[in-house]
Amino acid sequence: MTRPSEDDLIARYFAPLASAPGADGLTDDAAVIPEGEGALVVTKDMLVAGVHFFPDDPPELVAAKALRVNLSDLAAKGAMPVGFLLGLGLPADWTEEFLNGFAAGLKQDIDLWACPLYGGDTVKVPGPLTLSITAFGRATHVVRRRGARPGDLICVTGTIGDGALGLIARAADRAPDTAPAWVAALEPQHRAHLVMRYLAPLPRVFFAPAVAAHASAAMDISDGFAGDLAKLLKASGVGATSRFEDLPLSEAALAALALEPALLRTVLTGGDDYEILLTCSPDDVAALTEAANAAGTLLTPIGEVTEGAGLALLDAEDRAVDVGPGRFEHF
Amino acid sequence: MTRPSEDDLIARYFAPLASAPGADGLTDDAAVIPEGEGALVVTKDMLVAGVHFFPDDPPELVAAKALRVNLSDLAAKGAMPVGFLLGLGLPADWTEEFLNGFAAGLKQDIDLWACPLYGGDTVKVPGPLTLSITAFGRATHVVRRRGARPGDLICVTGTIGDGALGLIARAADRAPDTAPAWVAALEPQHRAHLVMRYLAPLPRVFFAPAVAAHASAAMDISDGFAGDLAKLLKASGVGATSRFEDLPLSEAALAALALEPALLRTVLTGGDDYEILLTCSPDDVAALTEAANAAGTLLTPIGEVTEGAGLALLDAEDRAVDVGPGRFEHF
Repeated sequence: MTRPSEDDLIARYFAPLASAPGADGLTDDAAVIPEGEGALVVTKDMLVAGVHFFPDDPPELVAAKALRVNLSDLAAKGAMPVGFLLGLGLPADWTEEFLNGFAAGLKQDIDLWACPLYGGDTVKVPGPLTLSITAFGRATHVVRRRGARPGDLICVTGTIGDGALGLIARAADRAPDTAPAWVAALEPQHRAHLVMRYLAPLPRVFFAPAVAAHASAAMDISDGFAGDLAKLLKASGVGATSRFEDLPLSEAALAALALEPALLRTVLTGGDDYEILLTCSPDDVAALTEAANAAGTLLTPIGEVTEGAGLALLDAEDRAVDVGPGRFEHF
Repeated sequence: MTRPSEDDLIARYFAPLASAPGADGLTDDAAVIPEGEGALVVTKDMLVAGVHFFPDDPPELVAAKALRVNLSDLAAKGAMPVGFLLGLGLPADWTEEFLNGFAAGLKQDIDLWACPLYGGDTVKVPGPLTLSITAFGRATHVVRRRGARPGDLICVTGTIGDGALGLIARAADRAPDTAPAWVAALEPQHRAHLVMRYLAPLPRVFFAPAVAAHASAAMDISDGFAGDLAKLLKASGVGATSRFEDLPLSEAALAALALEPALLRTVLTGGDDYEILLTCSPDDVAALTEAANAAGTLLTPIGEVTEGAGLALLDAEDRAVDVGPGRFEHF
């Protein structure tokens, strides 16, 4: 039997329960609660050992990633962090070593992003370690997925595909016998770069004010570039053209692609990028690029919003690249 | 090896991370974020199948309970609900029947408490069903655990002990062969009352404004009356005297105690009451009682705050009742 996707499941069972305007029909990365002056932008991501991270990932980085994936959602809405709540489901065999590392990693990120811990809940789980973080932010203007207009440019921060390639490289670190040939052939520094991008994504927190000031629509890329862009276009009721060769790729990703061209699909549809995808007027690209650089990252125009619907993803010869029906789903 | 309690674990690993004033050192049921005008009261409770509820509990009531235990925390801080986020960790074998029932139960409670769904996250878990709800509220004044003063009266809403007795009765429903004699001997309506109090606690939401207006300190009773009162006294730096015979017990709990006097300890230290424990000036008892009655519940004075430290729990002959070192821990 085909199981519904996470989006189908939300649309069917939970969207009917979300009538508040700030919930936006559960179609966005974050909610605004309550509406009006002084509202908080709130988001919640759950991470489960064995699903969203490897059980033996360094606890410092598990803690950091759990917070960062939430801060990435906030940043994509134009919101700076205010604080967070931590739900911690601990299996019976937790160790002091794990919790010491976890707390140390969390402390570093609390300081790094100026995002203090406000509370939470600790429970035992007869299953894998489960983390549920609720993060709170403030924005001068909350940017939704639905504001893209024909003629807008589409831009992304950072580089695309590293997280998905890093996941494969990390799995290969854990089980060298099953490593694909391209992983084994990568230069060590490229391999380490990809693994680190998977283990410790860098949310574009300090770029958030520029998103609020200039983006017409935005979201973070967490479930794969092609699928997430399609979601933004659908929410905005527009289409787009994007050229694959315009996509910003890291040296490590280019090296992997040179070794194994079939990884193109992984780059386009893999998850765990945690970069910001936004649309803006062509007039605003310069200001956004400057802000991105000031925040320590790149901003790359990768396509244009068009009338109509659907995403035309073109290769170097302007042929449509078929990324297939699949896209990465944490669910 | 002795494992630390939930409180020890929070104090050791996470309290050092919570420097924001609104986090109150992670010693309260809810946080205030951010500080100042327009702040939200936020709380987060996780519930795990097999730990906090039985895997075959009716999904409508699992949903209701998951929301209600959070609303109980808000009410105890004097806060009315604003909305909530739902983190849903689904095992691979989830059924449409379960999700239909879960969503229907959630819808009813959303309407009942005027507490809309704002968002959340759905993930798969290679373990039991895991629920993580973050609830938001607003209070004219946030009541903490630490405001009790010598001379204040201690009051509780509703009745104490039903949830803990109901847990035993519910377990007996599921495994009749293991039912204690007192459960089997209870009148059916008493048994049903206790089970329902366990499955579907009633948070004192509509009493929250009176808590904000009149209570000097408050918390909800979720981990056992005696232990929770001791926590409130410790947070306030005071002691108390309370007479067991003043505790409000339901007819069903009295019937159970008549059948099995040793259940006294369960009543005093069992969890799952979800009633409000508060302290107030004797001058405010009348107004609080009137507000409780208007909100459909009782308010019962059960003791007095004293100088010093510690809780003296006295029986009918003014002898201290020893409830032992144990108290209920969901963790």
